[in-house]
Amino acid sequence: MTGKIIHKPATIRDVARLAKVSIGTVSKALNDSGKLKPETRARVIAEAKKLGFRPNDLALSLHRGHSLTVGVITTDSFGRFTMPIVEGLEAQLSDGGISVFLCNATDDREREARHVESLLGKRVDGIVVTARRSDRRPALQVPVSRVPVLYAFSQTDDPDALSLLPDDEGGARRATEHLIAVGRRRIAHVTGPEHFEAVQLRRDGYRAALKAARVPAPAGYFLAGAWSEAWGREALDRLFVRGRSVPDGIFCGNDQIARGIIDGLRERGITVPDAVSIVGFDNWEIIAAATRPPLTSIDMNLKELGREAGRRLLERIAGARLRGVHRLPCSLIVRESCGAGRPDRRET
Amino acid sequence: MTGKIIHKPATIRDVARLAKVSIGTVSKALNDSGKLKPETRARVIAEAKKLGFRPNDLALSLHRGHSLTVGVITTDSFGRFTMPIVEGLEAQLSDGGISVFLCNATDDREREARHVESLLGKRVDGIVVTARRSDRRPALQVPVSRVPVLYAFSQTDDPDALSLLPDDEGGARRATEHLIAVGRRRIAHVTGPEHFEAVQLRRDGYRAALKAARVPAPAGYFLAGAWSEAWGREALDRLFVRGRSVPDGIFCGNDQIARGIIDGLRERGITVPDAVSIVGFDNWEIIAAATRPPLTSIDMNLKELGREAGRRLLERIAGARLRGVHRLPCSLIVRESCGAGRPDRRET
Repeated sequence: MTGKIIHKPATIRDVARLAKVSIGTVSKALNDSGKLKPETRARVIAEAKKLGFRPNDLALSLHRGHSLTVGVITTDSFGRFTMPIVEGLEAQLSDGGISVFLCNATDDREREARHVESLLGKRVDGIVVTARRSDRRPALQVPVSRVPVLYAFSQTDDPDALSLLPDDEGGARRATEHLIAVGRRRIAHVTGPEHFEAVQLRRDGYRAALKAARVPAPAGYFLAGAWSEAWGREALDRLFVRGRSVPDGIFCGNDQIARGIIDGLRERGITVPDAVSIVGFDNWEIIAAATRPPLTSIDMNLKELGREAGRRLLERIAGARLRGVHRLPCSLIVRESCGAGRPDRRET
Repeated sequence: MTGKIIHKPATIRDVARLAKVSIGTVSKALNDSGKLKPETRARVIAEAKKLGFRPNDLALSLHRGHSLTVGVITTDSFGRFTMPIVEGLEAQLSDGGISVFLCNATDDREREARHVESLLGKRVDGIVVTARRSDRRPALQVPVSRVPVLYAFSQTDDPDALSLLPDDEGGARRATEHLIAVGRRRIAHVTGPEHFEAVQLRRDGYRAALKAARVPAPAGYFLAGAWSEAWGREALDRLFVRGRSVPDGIFCGNDQIARGIIDGLRERGITVPDAVSIVGFDNWEIIAAATRPPLTSIDMNLKELGREAGRRLLERIAGARLRGVHRLPCSLIVRESCGAGRPDRRET
């Protein structure tokens, strides 16, 4: 390579300066994400083109003065919510040559502090915090303030923090609207422990959808309990009481509850979806595909949430100021438990 | 810290030299793992004590000339086999201040090569390869030969490679012996696709246990198919034929098959464990605990396999020569599907 002239590549800052927008806006325009005026997007793309700056260069442009490493701290022991998030994050970042350190803090704050120290010692460019559940947690204690922190499927009380969460309420509304659309009018909601924020938001979405369609929501039709198949079966005992009006649709807070309900209905001789339509939540393939019939479910798109976390973290590393709680849309995955549509149809 | 005298800490090499053993033997002795003569173990511990060398110092002793980072390359997209392994590995290494880079290569060899390049660029001290299944794969192409590679739940044709795998055959023997111990004499084996090495090894273990106990193994009692609940239910149609001798025990190749079989038996009015005892494989909590009755299953101890991978990798980084395929023991987790013992008893 000796003697070869190496041109200094354009950075996202150059594009932002020429297009007279923020670094975050450049990223949004080039990644085709977020809400932007079409003319702003066009101007950014034009300036980027002039400079020969491609979207992937966002990561590459960080080369100077950065370690090209990012740390993920999870309290989920690499469980089923963390994994798709990390998969999306890693896919997004590794395309730009950035490697991901994975640290398992369980729920141990001392262990977490040691991990932060170790990550800072390795000069990571940013840290993503993810968790077993999306409820609020204490802010990550990062003594070096220049290292950006992003919460994915996790949030904190710090108003300056940036959080990406699934839109639980919107997902629940979507599930309930689907039950209404297939003709159901007596729709129950069986869900997990009510102290989970996600349970409260999904309950609100369920109620909002019923209200909007003027479908009644009898008090006994909302049942909060546990995240288990056993609770699903138990809830049936409360819903299917002889002489009472029984549901013809059930929106379940997760797929395990839905599986318990579908198994329990079969054992009572009640057919799904002919007599009762069922929607789950999580779209956990191992459960949703094995249920008889296969389960229509809400997908939180956690892999995409991980990708978005990667994009936003790069923007923050590049200097963009981002804060607040951002809720990303859920999708409805139609299988056979509602009796509508073709199987395995994804409606986003 | 200026002016303070810092003593050069003892290294694992110092202990090995004084105890007149290999570095690997020191590690085994101090970690209380592997097979060693008691007097060798005692001598190593005595020398380590004299030098003030603690087991945790193995990692710390690598400080000089090492980056204290290790890469994990998985083809499992952070799936259910990889995750417990990475959890154990990360726990083992982070205790010594070593951080883990996680790279998802899916099954894309080009992507894998880019990950290796990126890891070498970040000067990792070693690389662990893990996979979706334990079958042989091409060796990882690492152009820098001084970087040790270890295969965990994965293996390759290179005879110099070091592989850690679960003892599938031993686990299957254990499962079958348990069915014999609770009094079963007509024991079937329903399992996954026969081209999986794990399926062949588990079949061999099943047959060996029957042979040792002089229990007959009718040809129609071995059924290889898919790793699914649906296959479990389908296999019942072949096993429970009117007028034929039907099994009183079934060893299943995984927990999903076992779940399908238990559900199918219930629907035929055949009670588990009274009429038929069932053992699964994987001890996948989400399935094993939700099955009715809860499922007795074989646990591959993948978290411990990850910890062992961490220990062995440190030994290799420290200079120990380790090679070959090492099979680590599986455990029997007794729940209620065999009608024996207290629930949730772990027999190792």
